Amino acid sequence: MVVFKASKFILSGSSPGTTKSIAHRLLLSHGYIHQVGNGLYSFLPLGQRVIDKLIRLVDIELESIGAMKVSMPILGARPLWEKAARWDSMGTELFKIQDRHGVEMCLQPTAEEMCTQLVAQLPPQKKRMFPLLIYQTTDKFRDEMNPRFGLLRSRQFLMKDLYSFDLDKDGATRTYNRVCKIYDRILRDRLGLEVYKVTAQPGIHGGSLSHEYHLPNPLEEDGIHFCSKCGSGSKKEDGPCKCECGESSSVRTFSTVEVAHTFQLGTKYSEALGALTKEKQPLEMCCFGIGISRLLPAIVSLLSTSEKAVRLPPLISPFSAAVIVTKNLMDNVMTELTLSSLDRRLSGGILLDDRVEDNIGKRIKSLREIGIPRIVVLGKTTEKTINKVPKVEYFPPQEDSQQDESREWTLNEVMQSIG
Amino acid sequence: MVVFKASKFILSGSSPGTTKSIAHRLLLSHGYIHQVGNGLYSFLPLGQRVIDKLIRLVDIELESIGAMKVSMPILGARPLWEKAARWDSMGTELFKIQDRHGVEMCLQPTAEEMCTQLVAQLPPQKKRMFPLLIYQTTDKFRDEMNPRFGLLRSRQFLMKDLYSFDLDKDGATRTYNRVCKIYDRILRDRLGLEVYKVTAQPGIHGGSLSHEYHLPNPLEEDGIHFCSKCGSGSKKEDGPCKCECGESSSVRTFSTVEVAHTFQLGTKYSEALGALTKEKQPLEMCCFGIGISRLLPAIVSLLSTSEKAVRLPPLISPFSAAVIVTKNLMDNVMTELTLSSLDRRLSGGILLDDRVEDNIGKRIKSLREIGIPRIVVLGKTTEKTINKVPKVEYFPPQEDSQQDESREWTLNEVMQSIG
Repeated sequence: MVVFKASKFILSGSSPGTTKSIAHRLLLSHGYIHQVGNGLYSFLPLGQRVIDKLIRLVDIELESIGAMKVSMPILGARPLWEKAARWDSMGTELFKIQDRHGVEMCLQPTAEEMCTQLVAQLPPQKKRMFPLLIYQTTDKFRDEMNPRFGLLRSRQFLMKDLYSFDLDKDGATRTYNRVCKIYDRILRDRLGLEVYKVTAQPGIHGGSLSHEYHLPNPLEEDGIHFCSKCGSGSKKEDGPCKCECGESSSVRTFSTVEVAHTFQLGTKYSEALGALTKEKQPLEMCCFGIGISRLLPAIVSLLSTSEKAVRLPPLISPFSAAVIVTKNLMDNVMTELTLSSLDRRLSGGILLDDRVEDNIGKRIKSLREIGIPRIVVLGKTTEKTINKVPKVEYFPPQEDSQQDESREWTLNEVMQSIG
Repeated sequence: MVVFKASKFILSGSSPGTTKSIAHRLLLSHGYIHQVGNGLYSFLPLGQRVIDKLIRLVDIELESIGAMKVSMPILGARPLWEKAARWDSMGTELFKIQDRHGVEMCLQPTAEEMCTQLVAQLPPQKKRMFPLLIYQTTDKFRDEMNPRFGLLRSRQFLMKDLYSFDLDKDGATRTYNRVCKIYDRILRDRLGLEVYKVTAQPGIHGGSLSHEYHLPNPLEEDGIHFCSKCGSGSKKEDGPCKCECGESSSVRTFSTVEVAHTFQLGTKYSEALGALTKEKQPLEMCCFGIGISRLLPAIVSLLSTSEKAVRLPPLISPFSAAVIVTKNLMDNVMTELTLSSLDRRLSGGILLDDRVEDNIGKRIKSLREIGIPRIVVLGKTTEKTINKVPKVEYFPPQEDSQQDESREWTLNEVMQSIG
């Protein structure tokens, strides 16, 4: 078991300046991220832990449907990008670069071309390999005219992009629905988010059918119409409200941010790059993206009820729990036992708050502010009971806690409540 | 438990062409990597699993000494790189780019400047935070004149780079020795590699003391003098053999590749970028790199005894074990039990070889070729014994196996041998 110590781990955050985004202010001031330049951010230790947990969560869910993780280079050659005519159509958002030999390349914002080329260049795969699902989680680049709201619209961002290859259209539709279900599972079931799936125009990526996943957000960056009756909706920018049941009185229109998108691409890329079946037919493709780094501010905006404290789903909080100890109990076996019991039960890391020069109230406040869901205090109560049945003070995740509940628990009771 | 199926997971590799590097040929032809362009490679599913395991191994070891994981942007601004006078001195190996506003940046090959700026810009950290150890594992770039040997000298590569900040020189020396010990632990103890630590010239990065970690390699890319008596050595390019004990008869000179390096940097960067103690003294820095993506071919070259089969330490093999089943046993409870028992004992993933159209000998050969260390066969032997005490055929990792050992084991015996 690795013990992370609060005295060492929690970097002071930086001043949030004047941004309109509450989530961005929270992430800057609580040491989740740091601004490096225009639209460029570092993840600090707290933010990095959340990003790593999001990546792992997505890996597990995608592996469960047989998707295979790869990583493709960031640099994409101009001739590759010209094959589906996107070198020019991506416009000024494409970061362009020349190597020492004058060869033109771009910092890829997405990888339809490169992934399709990969499938075209490998020896023909056997029929049993299809549908072939290939994905990566890598840095992507977009030279935004006006980067804003921190990670929400940055110039370097982390995206999970999955590409599927099927032998025919029906197969592609089945794959599309299957991956959409997994997206629901990740965002709704695992992360517990209020998420809205709406139809969207495929746009520059091409194809026939596209959906986006949106979270409510006050920044007016995007917006959707959504019908509470039939559960369908569309993007505000695509025109008047459209819902499947036609009951326009059940349609609400509100401000959101996009966190994921899905496309049935058809054969645009497979034809252009020669990714073919054994019978020389172009493979039917879909693509699926999740904005891993933009999920962080989108979730913080959705869940943080106060401007002062970061809130995240316990599954992806930087630590699953923190243990606050007094100086007296620092080297006590009870501290060791509490840490190891929590570590066995919870897989997201345990933080030992050893900042004994600060009082316990201040430390609870500090841990709440950085978004630790469960706090166990080994303080006066524990010191008094240590030789009988030791008690701790336990602060469960907010959604479980009851105001009038006793704070004094045995370690066993804490473990049972975690389940 | 996620079951990975061989029928879906193993992508055919591509033709290795004419490279001199046996490791590179093995990685291309067995579907670990794919060439995208000059010095640019994709990791395919098998290679990606090894890379992910290497990253996780390094994370665990660095967390154990309190190092904190972050990630910094790939794009570094020209003014930042001019502060320690490296924009020009890095020369033509620096990939340079301009954004839409004409701002000059580079694709960073390393991050001394950016990490030092981070420490300089955050609010002053308390004394207890030192030594401050910050690291990342991110893509780095170098516009090599002549990329070669695949991942060994590629233009985009994955590097773990750790930066340490101490309040004084003694602290920096202690930190340096502590991290060097962890490097020994990762490379020698955990991965079991034959690794040589030698002194090196600090070069362009600056500083006073530097070491490199080398693995034996036939490609003549690099070379070292190493004394078997005192265990010290130096780089061949730095001149005649130097060893601490002066017993030159115990010095051997041989061809190697570098997989890690460490530097005591002093205050070059902290002075230039203003990373100061509360008393306004520049912090004492060290930096430490591990070439994550070049470790893959370096290890394969060291361990693969035949040109036909990839060999890796079991800890980072793409799967910890594979289970081969016949069609008859495909849905048998014995298969389920074997998979779940292995999965509980080994944390690196279990591959189910469900390619029932191929005979068992062919499948064993295929799994050995891609470097699976442990193979359990549920074949004729199991079918015969399934209603008594079921037996399997077990092929342990090569180093444990004895030619004349019986191949017939009970599942319990297999589990005990794994330990």
